[in-house]
Amino acid sequence: MTGTIEQKLTAQGITLPEPASPVANYVGFVRTGNLLVVSGQLCFDLEGKLVAKGKLGADVSIEQGAAAARACAVNLLAQLKAALGDLDKVVRVVRLGGFINCTPDFPDAPKVMNGASDLMVAAFGDKGRHARTTIGVASLPAHAAVEVEGLFEVA
Amino acid sequence: MTGTIEQKLTAQGITLPEPASPVANYVGFVRTGNLLVVSGQLCFDLEGKLVAKGKLGADVSIEQGAAAARACAVNLLAQLKAALGDLDKVVRVVRLGGFINCTPDFPDAPKVMNGASDLMVAAFGDKGRHARTTIGVASLPAHAAVEVEGLFEVA
Amino acid sequence: MTGTIEQKLTAQGITLPEPASPVANYVGFVRTGNLLVVSGQLCFDLEGKLVAKGKLGADVSIEQGAAAARACAVNLLAQLKAALGDLDKVVRVVRLGGFINCTPDFPDAPKVMNGASDLMVAAFGDKGRHARTTIGVASLPAHAAVEVEGLFEVA
Repeated sequence: MTGTIEQKLTAQGITLPEPASPVANYVGFVRTGNLLVVSGQLCFDLEGKLVAKGKLGADVSIEQGAAAARACAVNLLAQLKAALGDLDKVVRVVRLGGFINCTPDFPDAPKVMNGASDLMVAAFGDKGRHARTTIGVASLPAHAAVEVEGLFEVA
Repeated sequence: MTGTIEQKLTAQGITLPEPASPVANYVGFVRTGNLLVVSGQLCFDLEGKLVAKGKLGADVSIEQGAAAARACAVNLLAQLKAALGDLDKVVRVVRLGGFINCTPDFPDAPKVMNGASDLMVAAFGDKGRHARTTIGVASLPAHAAVEVEGLFEVA
Repeated sequence: MTGTIEQKLTAQGITLPEPASPVANYVGFVRTGNLLVVSGQLCFDLEGKLVAKGKLGADVSIEQGAAAARACAVNLLAQLKAALGDLDKVVRVVRLGGFINCTPDFPDAPKVMNGASDLMVAAFGDKGRHARTTIGVASLPAHAAVEVEGLFEVA
């Protein structure tokens, strides 16, 4: 049985991947009380390939970066599904942290990060509107272009 | 009617701006239980102009950077006011995250971030003392020199 | 009297330092409800010397970086001990944030950060498994190679 949120995603052509299994002494998510903290997700697609690799401002366009941020958000949803069984148990997307791999003079990290924010609202409507911090970073694991972490209030 | 904290700020010559309205699918703050998560604030002044633009270690002095961090903190207060109506409802400043736009060899991010920490204590006294993480980042939105995010316990 | 977690650390040859006392208007930790937020810890050793200085990808090897991350984690434990009196009161390591000072093309920040994650599991077993975000940053305070912050559920 699939919840209404996941049905809405399917109707928009969004398929959730298997959530990434960390290969070290950390995990994809931890719940404490009604808060679910999800590990930083890289911009892997359903096949486990990076949607964008390298730096905004050099190798990656804003459009490609936004698609990468959207992929990070899809991976956050996959972790939520693994944690909760049903995305309908998400009460509120509380915060997203966006990390954009970029050159030192790149000023448009928010335009990139909108790819993740838009997906949260596409999935959860007004409950998907979140506090957000976006920064440009020197490098990301595996040369990923974007990484996004999430904090959620859950039922 | 203005609360005692805001009166104290006024007495110190600190005016709160209109809080920034995000132009995308995120919001300035989200409350979950007694926690208020505030989005990363750039160093805009009351007129909406960046207090400092560019990089610490190159274009921006430590003094200018500290003034920029202070402006970020004032913008956090503006978000708190919008969220709570009255700054007296802040129980504790729990955490500030400070992001300093800088050259790769800049070692003095904490001196810059003190501009934000000092303002929190000027506003809230001992309740303004917070956990803090300060890092040097590759770039920030709109070439801002400083960005600060906040986590608050609220009544 | 020393709790069982600290006895286990001692058996592994791990000594907790005096926790760093911030020299400004912030503190080492803040508790809110059952959450303990610990400030970003640099890779200082017991003598107050940085375990590794400079950048991964240039001056610092992955092995040296992992040792630095482990030192950051030991410093997080020292803050926990100061906050709680007894490390046995840690219910769960909820999240670690890892900041790796590195060159723009360094892809191995997770290998460095494992030094911190492994120490948490060495100390707390399964309760030490945490959500994690690791990024490469442009610079860190005092040219430290690694900084780690922590969020903990506590009794």
